[in-house]
Amino acid sequence: MKRRIVVVGANAAGAKAAAKARRINPRAEISVIDRGSFISYGACGIPYYVSDTVTDVKELMSTPVGVVRDANFFKKVKGVSVKTNTEVTGIDREAKVIRLREGAGAETSLPYDKLILATGSSPFVPKIENVGLKNILTVKSIEDAELLKESALSCSAACIVGGGLIGLETAEALRQKGMQVTLVEMRDQLLPGVLDPEVAAAVEKHVKQQGVTVLTGCAVTGFAGEGTVATVLVGDLEIKADLVVLAPGATPNVQLAREAGLAIGTTGAIAVDQMLRTSDPDIYACGDCCETTHLVTGKKVFVPLGSTANKQGRVAGINAAGGEATFAGIIGTSILKVFSFNAGKTGLTETEARANGFDVETVLSPAPDRAHFFPGAKPIMLKLVADRSTGRILGLQAAGEGAVDKRLDAAAAAITFKATAEQLSQLDLAYAPPYGAAMDNLIVAADIMKNKLSGHARGISAREVKRKLDEEEDFILLDVRSPAEHGEIGIEGAKLIPLGVLREKLEELPRDKEIVTFCKISLRGYEAQKILDAAGFTNVKFMDGGIMAWPYKFRDR
Amino acid sequence: MKRRIVVVGANAAGAKAAAKARRINPRAEISVIDRGSFISYGACGIPYYVSDTVTDVKELMSTPVGVVRDANFFKKVKGVSVKTNTEVTGIDREAKVIRLREGAGAETSLPYDKLILATGSSPFVPKIENVGLKNILTVKSIEDAELLKESALSCSAACIVGGGLIGLETAEALRQKGMQVTLVEMRDQLLPGVLDPEVAAAVEKHVKQQGVTVLTGCAVTGFAGEGTVATVLVGDLEIKADLVVLAPGATPNVQLAREAGLAIGTTGAIAVDQMLRTSDPDIYACGDCCETTHLVTGKKVFVPLGSTANKQGRVAGINAAGGEATFAGIIGTSILKVFSFNAGKTGLTETEARANGFDVETVLSPAPDRAHFFPGAKPIMLKLVADRSTGRILGLQAAGEGAVDKRLDAAAAAITFKATAEQLSQLDLAYAPPYGAAMDNLIVAADIMKNKLSGHARGISAREVKRKLDEEEDFILLDVRSPAEHGEIGIEGAKLIPLGVLREKLEELPRDKEIVTFCKISLRGYEAQKILDAAGFTNVKFMDGGIMAWPYKFRDR
Ligand SMILES: Cc1cc2nc3c(=O)[nH]c(=O)nc-3n(C[C@H](O)[C@H](O)[C@H](O)COP(=O)(O)OP(=O)(O)OC[C@H]3O[C@@H](n4cnc5c(N)ncnc54)[C@H](O)[C@@H]3O)c2cc1C
Ligand SMILES: Cc1cc2nc3c(=O)[nH]c(=O)nc-3n(C[C@H](O)[C@H](O)[C@H](O)COP(=O)(O)OP(=O)(O)OC[C@H]3O[C@@H](n4cnc5c(N)ncnc54)[C@H](O)[C@@H]3O)c2cc1C
Ligand SMILES: CC(C)(COP(=O)(O)OP(=O)(O)OC[C@H]1O[C@@H](n2cnc3c(N)ncnc32)[C@H](O)[C@@H]1OP(=O)(O)O)[C@@H](O)C(=O)NCCC(=O)NCCS
Ligand SMILES: CC(C)(COP(=O)(O)OP(=O)(O)OC[C@H]1O[C@@H](n2cnc3c(N)ncnc32)[C@H](O)[C@@H]1OP(=O)(O)O)[C@@H](O)C(=O)NCCC(=O)NCCS
Ligand SMILES: [Ca+2]
Ligand SMILES: [Ca+2]
Repeated sequence: MKRRIVVVGANAAGAKAAAKARRINPRAEISVIDRGSFISYGACGIPYYVSDTVTDVKELMSTPVGVVRDANFFKKVKGVSVKTNTEVTGIDREAKVIRLREGAGAETSLPYDKLILATGSSPFVPKIENVGLKNILTVKSIEDAELLKESALSCSAACIVGGGLIGLETAEALRQKGMQVTLVEMRDQLLPGVLDPEVAAAVEKHVKQQGVTVLTGCAVTGFAGEGTVATVLVGDLEIKADLVVLAPGATPNVQLAREAGLAIGTTGAIAVDQMLRTSDPDIYACGDCCETTHLVTGKKVFVPLGSTANKQGRVAGINAAGGEATFAGIIGTSILKVFSFNAGKTGLTETEARANGFDVETVLSPAPDRAHFFPGAKPIMLKLVADRSTGRILGLQAAGEGAVDKRLDAAAAAITFKATAEQLSQLDLAYAPPYGAAMDNLIVAADIMKNKLSGHARGISAREVKRKLDEEEDFILLDVRSPAEHGEIGIEGAKLIPLGVLREKLEELPRDKEIVTFCKISLRGYEAQKILDAAGFTNVKFMDGGIMAWPYKFRDR
Repeated sequence: MKRRIVVVGANAAGAKAAAKARRINPRAEISVIDRGSFISYGACGIPYYVSDTVTDVKELMSTPVGVVRDANFFKKVKGVSVKTNTEVTGIDREAKVIRLREGAGAETSLPYDKLILATGSSPFVPKIENVGLKNILTVKSIEDAELLKESALSCSAACIVGGGLIGLETAEALRQKGMQVTLVEMRDQLLPGVLDPEVAAAVEKHVKQQGVTVLTGCAVTGFAGEGTVATVLVGDLEIKADLVVLAPGATPNVQLAREAGLAIGTTGAIAVDQMLRTSDPDIYACGDCCETTHLVTGKKVFVPLGSTANKQGRVAGINAAGGEATFAGIIGTSILKVFSFNAGKTGLTETEARANGFDVETVLSPAPDRAHFFPGAKPIMLKLVADRSTGRILGLQAAGEGAVDKRLDAAAAAITFKATAEQLSQLDLAYAPPYGAAMDNLIVAADIMKNKLSGHARGISAREVKRKLDEEEDFILLDVRSPAEHGEIGIEGAKLIPLGVLREKLEELPRDKEIVTFCKISLRGYEAQKILDAAGFTNVKFMDGGIMAWPYKFRDR
C-alpha cells in the first residue's frame, strides 16, 4: 500500500517537508493541510513589504523566477496536494487519523501512516488591559502585513511593544513610512537574549539616531481608546499611538500536539529526537512548533527561525517518507538589519554563557570591516566569548554598519566544530582589501582572546571604568591617542600621554596606582599596557574596545 | 644577557614578527633590517592606488588612525629599531652574525641570538627577449606603484603578462585609468591554480565586458621597441603596447637562506617546521619567503599572501622572543575583486583535488546572494568539491557580483575542521533577507552535494553537454523552464517542457533515451530528474548550474 503522509502546516517547515518527502518517495500520498489561505510565504520579508522595500506582496510567496507558490504550484511542480483554509482540529493516534474542518464546514477525517506537525508559532499576545482594541496588530501572516501596511497610511504615531528582532524591523518599516515611532521594551536593553547589553546599546544608539523613541525597562500595562487604540499605558506614563504592533515574541503552536498527548518539552515547544520524531514514532514535528538542542550548551531551546524551519522540514520529510536523516541542533545564530545597522550573534552571549555556568573571558574588538584604506570600509564591533579553562569559543556577537554577517557565519562554522581561540586565530580566511584587513576582524578578536587567556592582555569593561569614575575611585584613566584625537572626542577625567611618547614619559605616572589605558579601539591601549608592564608597573589594564565601545557621554569639548 | 633578535625584511611578516617579539619579550634587543626605503606597507593596496581608488600612497603605509609606519614609528610605538636601505648580504651561522651593507657603504656585521628571515618574494621576471626594455614593469614595491601610476598617464595601451590575481587587479586599475588593456595568459584559462575552468570562464566574461582584451593559452615570447617597449610578441602575434606589466607570479627570496645552507623545500621556498624554525634552530622564517603545509592535502605549498605573512610573523616573533607558538598551515584561500566581480576559492579546486588523487564529486549552484526579493540581491555561483568516499568537503569556489567572501570564509572554517557535506548543510548560518536566503547558498550547495553522493541527484557538466551536442549524440536536452524564459534565452537544440506540465507530458519523451534536463540554475532541472526517475525513466541527469553556468553561446533568438 502507498504510504500516506499528512503534513499539518504549509509554510516554511511543512512545505519543505512535503516537497522533500515527494522527492524521496515518489509513490507516497502526500497531503498538506493549512488553516490559512496563504501558504509557503516568507514571513521574514513582511517588514520589507510594509516599508515598500518590497513592492509586491506576491514576491514574498514566489520562487526566484517569479512563480507564485499556491496550491496549484504544489500540485503541478512539487507533486503534493495542499488544502488551504482547513484547520486540523485533532489527532487520533490510535486510529492514525486526523480530524479537519474546511472553513466553517463540517469536520472530516484523513488517515495517515506518517504525520508531520509543522504548525509553527504565533505572536505572543500579552493578556493586558484593552489588548483587543482596534489597530493593535501583530506581524506574522500575509493578512497581518496587508493590514499593517494599510494602517500605516492612515495612522501617524506607532508604538511597538517588544524590542526583539521583529519589533525592531517593524519599527524601521513604520519609520520609513513616515510615522512617528516609539518602541517599548520591558527588559532593560534591546534584543535581550540576542545581544549583551553593551552591544545592544550600539543598536539602540543607531535606532534613536533614526528618530525612533526607545523606552527600555518599561512594561506596557494596558491600552486606552474609544474602540480604536489611542494611548499605550506604561505604568503612569501614557504614550499617544493610533497604531500598536505587538512583537513581544513567539509562542509555539502546540495545542494539537498537546491534546494528542505528545510530549511537550521544557521550553513549551514539541519535544523531538534527532530524527525529529515526537514521542509518537509515527509523528514528526519540525519548524517553529518544536524545540531543538543548543549545540554549545547541550540544552533544549526554542529558537523559532525560518532557516531552521527549512532545514528541519527537509529532515522530517525524508524520515516520514522512509528515508533517514537527522537534525543535530542549532547554535542560536540570529541576525538583524535595522536602518543601516547590522547586528547579530552566534553561539552564546556572555550573559548566556555565564548563566550556563561557564567561566567566561570576553573580547571587544571594533575595527573597519575591510582594509581601512579601501573606500566604503565601515566599522564593526566584535564581541567574542570564550571558555577560560579550555579556550573554546562559545559565541560571537557582531554589530555595526559594516559586514557583520560574514564574521558571524565564519564563527558559526568554527563554533559548531568546537574551535578554540587558537584555532580561530589561524583560520585561512579570504583576504583582499575590498573584503577585510590582512588580519581579519575575526582573527584579531581571536588573538586578543589568546592574549587575555594567557595573561598577556588584561581588559576592563567600559562599564567598570564608568563605575570607577562615578565612585571617584583613585585610578588613572590614560588616553594614549594623539593630541588631535584627544581634542576631538574624549572621556572626562582622562589623562593624555600619546603612545609614541609613553616610553619617554613614564616618570609622569605613579607606579603603584591602578592605570586603565585606552585609545580609539584599545589596540594602542593594549600596547600601552605592554609598555607599562615592561617598565615594572604592576596594575595596568586597557579598556575593552576603547572609545568606540564607550556607550556613555563623552567629555564636553 | 639580553636576547638579540634580528629580523631581515620589514614588511608584513618581518614587521609583525618584530612588533610581536617586543610585546613578548620587553628586554630583548630587536633590530629589523630592510633593503628598501619603504617598510610595513600594504602591497595588496597598490592596484587601488594605481587606479586612484586610494588617492594618497601614504594610506598604504599608515595605521588606521593615519600614522605613517616608518622607522621612527617603529622605534617610538613598537619599540623596535628598523634600519632601511640596508641589505643583508650573508649569514654566518657558526658565528651567529649577519653581514649587512647600507646603501653603497661598506659591509658591517650584526650578531644575533635568534634570526628571523622575512625576506618575502619578488615578481618572477621571465627570461625572454628584450624583457629589459623601458616601460616593462612589475608590481610589488611602492616605487613600482609610483612608476606604474606615472606611466599610465603618458601611455595608452597596456599589456599585462599573467592572468593571476595581481595581473587581473592591475588590468582593472589600468583600465580605470582609461588605458586600452590586453591581458595575456599562458595557460588556457584565467586564474589557473585558483579556479576551475568553468568558474574562471565567468571571470573572463566579466573582464571582457569591461573592455579588457583577454588572450588565454598564449605565451609571450618577447618584446620589441626602440629603448622603450612598443610591441609584445606572442609567437607570430604582435600586440601594440607602450606599457607592459609582468605579473606571471612570485618567487620566494631564498638566496640568503640558500647561501647560508638552510634547507629549501620542494616548492623552492624556505623549509620550516610548525614553529617556523628553519633547518637551523636559531633561525626562523615567515611570510612569502617560506613554504607551508596545505591542511587538506598535507603537502608543502608556496602560497604567498599577506594574510598568511601576518599570522606567520606573529608566530615567528613569539618563538624568537622565547615564547611558544605554532602555525598549522593554510587551505589555499584566495579572493579577488575585479571590476564588479568577486571570485575566490578555499580548499581544493576540482583540478587540484583530482591531481591529489581524490575521488571527487562536484556541485555547481548559482543563486542570488540574499533573499531573491530583497533589493540589491546579486547572483553568485558556488562550486563545491567533495571527496566521494567520505563526503568530506575539499573545497569551495565562489564567483559573481554578490557576496562571495562570506561563503568562502564560512567554508574555510568548515573545511579546516574537515566538515562533511552533511555537517556543512546543517550549519546554523545567520539568516535574514538582507543577508541571504532562508537556506543559504552554502547550505543549498551542501544539500545538492548530499543528493549527488547518495545517488538522488545526477549531474552532468555543461562541457559534457556541449560535447554531446557538437558530436550530435542521440540524447534529449530538456528545458523545463517557462515558455517565457525559454523564449528569452536558450540553448540550441533543447526541447521545451515546462516543469509544471512535465508530469502530464511524459508521453512526449522516449523512455530509453538519455535525457539531460536544465532550467535557469538546474533546481527545476533536478526536480525534473526526480519526476522522470519516478516515472521509470532510467537515464536522466540534470545539467549542473543550468543556463547560469552555460559558458557557451546561447541559441540565436
Ligand atoms: C516579521 C517576521 C520576521 C521574521 N524574520 C526572520 C528572519 O529574519 N530570519 C529567520 O530565520 N526567521 C525569521 N522569522 C521567522 C520565520 O518566519 C519562521 O521561523 C518560519 O515562518 C517558521 O516556519 P514554520 O513553517 O515552522 O511555521 P509558520 O510559519 O508559523 O507556519 C505554520 C503554518 O501552520 C499552519 N497551522 C498551524 N496550526 C494549524 C492547524 N491546526 N491546522 C492547519 N494549519 C495550521 C499555519 O496556518 C501556518 O501556515 C520572522 C518571522 C516574522 C513573523
Ligand atoms: C599587487 C599585489 C597585490 C597583492 N594582493 C594581495 C591580496 O589581495 N591578499 C593577500 O593576502 N596578499 C596579497 N599580496 C601579497 C602580499 O603583499 C604579500 O604576501 C606580503 O607582502 C608578504 O609579506 P612579506 O613580509 O612576507 O614579504 P614582502 O612583502 O616581500 O617583504 C619582504 C621584505 O624583505 C626585504 N628584503 C628581502 N631581502 C632582503 C635582504 N637580503 N636584506 C634586507 N631586506 C630584504 C624587502 O625589501 C621587503 O621589504 C599582494 C601582493 C602584491 C604585490
Ligand atoms: C520553497 C519550499 C516550498 C520548499 O520547497 P523545496 O522544493 O524543498 O525547495 P526548493 O525549491 O528551494 O529546492 C528544491 C531542491 O532543489 C535543490 N537545488 C537547489 N538548487 C539546485 C541546483 N542549482 N541544482 C540542483 N539542485 C538544486 C535543493 O537541494 C532542493 O533539493 P533537496 O531538498 O532534495 O536537497 C519551502 O522552503 C517554503 O515554503 N519556503 C518559503 C517560506 C520560507 O522559507 N519561510 C522562511 C523564511 S521567512
Ligand atoms: C602593522 C604591523 C607592523 C604589525 O604590527 P603589530 O603591532 O603586530 O600589529 P597591530 O598594530 O595591528 O596590532 C597590535 C596588537 O594589538 C592587538 N589588538 C588589536 N586590536 C585590539 C583591541 N581592540 N584591543 C586590544 N588589543 C588589540 C592585536 O591582537 C595585536 O596584538 P598581538 O599580536 O600581541 O596579539 C604589520 O602587520 C605590518 O607591517 N602590516 C602592514 C603590511 C601588511 O600587512 N601587508 C600585507 C597586506 S598587503
Ligand atoms: Ca589582491
Ligand atoms: Ca528578520
